[in-house]
Amino acid sequence: MNRRRPRPRPDRRATIAPLPPPAPPHAPGELRQDPLSGCWVAITVGRAARPEAFLADAGPVRGPLGCPFCAGNEHMTPPEVWADREPGSDPDGPGWRVRVVPNKFPAFAGPPDASGPGQNGGLYRAMPTAGVHEVVIHSPDHTATLADLPEPALVRVLAAWRQRLASHRGGPFGAVVVIVNQGRTAGASLEHPHSQVFATAGRPERVKAELDRLAGSGCAACALVDAERDGPRVVDRSGGLLTVCPWASAAPFEALVLPERHRPRFDEAAGGTDPALAAALRGLLRRLPGAAAARAPYNLVLHSAPPGTDDFHWHLHLLPRLTTYGGFELGTGIVINVVDPDRAAAALRAVPPD
Amino acid sequence: MNRRRPRPRPDRRATIAPLPPPAPPHAPGELRQDPLSGCWVAITVGRAARPEAFLADAGPVRGPLGCPFCAGNEHMTPPEVWADREPGSDPDGPGWRVRVVPNKFPAFAGPPDASGPGQNGGLYRAMPTAGVHEVVIHSPDHTATLADLPEPALVRVLAAWRQRLASHRGGPFGAVVVIVNQGRTAGASLEHPHSQVFATAGRPERVKAELDRLAGSGCAACALVDAERDGPRVVDRSGGLLTVCPWASAAPFEALVLPERHRPRFDEAAGGTDPALAAALRGLLRRLPGAAAARAPYNLVLHSAPPGTDDFHWHLHLLPRLTTYGGFELGTGIVINVVDPDRAAAALRAVPPD
Repeated sequence: MNRRRPRPRPDRRATIAPLPPPAPPHAPGELRQDPLSGCWVAITVGRAARPEAFLADAGPVRGPLGCPFCAGNEHMTPPEVWADREPGSDPDGPGWRVRVVPNKFPAFAGPPDASGPGQNGGLYRAMPTAGVHEVVIHSPDHTATLADLPEPALVRVLAAWRQRLASHRGGPFGAVVVIVNQGRTAGASLEHPHSQVFATAGRPERVKAELDRLAGSGCAACALVDAERDGPRVVDRSGGLLTVCPWASAAPFEALVLPERHRPRFDEAAGGTDPALAAALRGLLRRLPGAAAARAPYNLVLHSAPPGTDDFHWHLHLLPRLTTYGGFELGTGIVINVVDPDRAAAALRAVPPD
Repeated sequence: MNRRRPRPRPDRRATIAPLPPPAPPHAPGELRQDPLSGCWVAITVGRAARPEAFLADAGPVRGPLGCPFCAGNEHMTPPEVWADREPGSDPDGPGWRVRVVPNKFPAFAGPPDASGPGQNGGLYRAMPTAGVHEVVIHSPDHTATLADLPEPALVRVLAAWRQRLASHRGGPFGAVVVIVNQGRTAGASLEHPHSQVFATAGRPERVKAELDRLAGSGCAACALVDAERDGPRVVDRSGGLLTVCPWASAAPFEALVLPERHRPRFDEAAGGTDPALAAALRGLLRRLPGAAAARAPYNLVLHSAPPGTDDFHWHLHLLPRLTTYGGFELGTGIVINVVDPDRAAAALRAVPPD
């Protein structure tokens, strides 16, 4: 039992950070299931080549110089797949208001493998990281976060989300999720504010769990609306949308924005809802600094009915990142939240909406 | 649908961070199940009163001045529940080598409620955060991380883990987990290196999932040892222990240390294993900076057979924190890892063990 593997002769020059070399764009990745926990992991080594892929790479604020998402630098991204453009402007040049491009370092890319998960000797299940990974550049402004955008500009961002969801709805995907990582602590590696659209061949566990709970007459989101709409955790209620700090918030100042009525798809229901959602989201994001912390990093996650399903209750999660997971969260799956959602909602309400 | 909640008149003085006031020690908490995802969250507002409970509170390095875990400051913690002491030294005074105290801001405390999860109107399931939450102070040295401790001192830390696991084994707990948060990014709020022991009344989903997979003749950990022990992801193999970068690593440079033979309990099996594990763990942690990044933050998670169970395969997870979760991870449960575990293992092996 004491056999040791032969070890290469120590080379002192090799002791500093031998990170993987840059991989070509669209490097294939692999979804792997951990045999101990059953959890799925996407190994996508191409993404290590991104600028600031690792937290320790964080330098000072970069500004617009050399930013691939700024106007005039359209050649630095793959060709656009959709854009909200000024009349007469050409694709992949200036004149856009919102621009959607494939992610240059995609975590998910390529057609799904019809064979499903492969079994590697019975222990290891894997499948390709098939799917689509796009970037929605919110505006030509390098520094304006969603909270900084005027309401009409935010409506245009939501219209882009809707357009991409509709575009992928008929595709061979188990889920399409739109997310925002705002701030480095929340996972943003590029400063210029943007969203990401992920369409995955398989259906992630978390999406599956929500689908189980939000379909049909027993929809938990409908029950939540009924239980919460006149209660102490309401932040805002307008335009058919309810904004609450969830009773089981997993993060300080977490919030949930959802239609009061059972609406499966953001992309279908939202035509008339975009201005209402823009107002609700903008109000929420503008209250957050006053209630929690200036420039609080956050994630947004939009869950809409996955392709091939008709019944769901779309909703938008706001997850501020004021604390971090420790070993307890990673080792148990239980998240510790130190802020009572009742108090979080009261603090958010107390901030003037501007 | 446009009814608005009456809103208190805006008070401009109230726009800055109205955090919850300090709660008394041992403030009760509540485990709540999110009705949308089914995930459990521990709402423990007492912990917001900790120094540096929020990431934005991070100040400069504090040093030992006023540190509750330094020798001479024993009065700053609750009375010790166990210690490795120099002969003749008194409890709660200097003379200890390893010291175990109840957490002053416990996430879990108090006797379990025999009634199980309460149903709140059918939508909301909750139970008290019953259990035990202890701190293992690794040594009187304010700055020595586990990697810095000499091997005999590390053996003493492992003996303390073993003692606490054995002590809680007969208790009314669904799980006992030992974790280390090293570095602020990994969730440490106090600098002085320490572990935490969590005994929870219920059995967390992650522990349940591993228990399902690591019991009996189909033990996935035994299969993993068979598949990996002569392969490219081995970092070290000695003293009956295997250290590998898991095939489905969820983090860059993740590693797993486990006995090659099926051993349920760390506290039972480890008597003779402490020196071997101390050597394996120390070697691994001393290689990490050379392979990944200087002072890389990390978590350790020790999973041993939960109380009331006899069959398991204990193991220790090392989870370096070089990247952060974004909205995709939080919204899908799938973690994106940008470093191939084969390369991570090669990089760890290439660092001289010292």
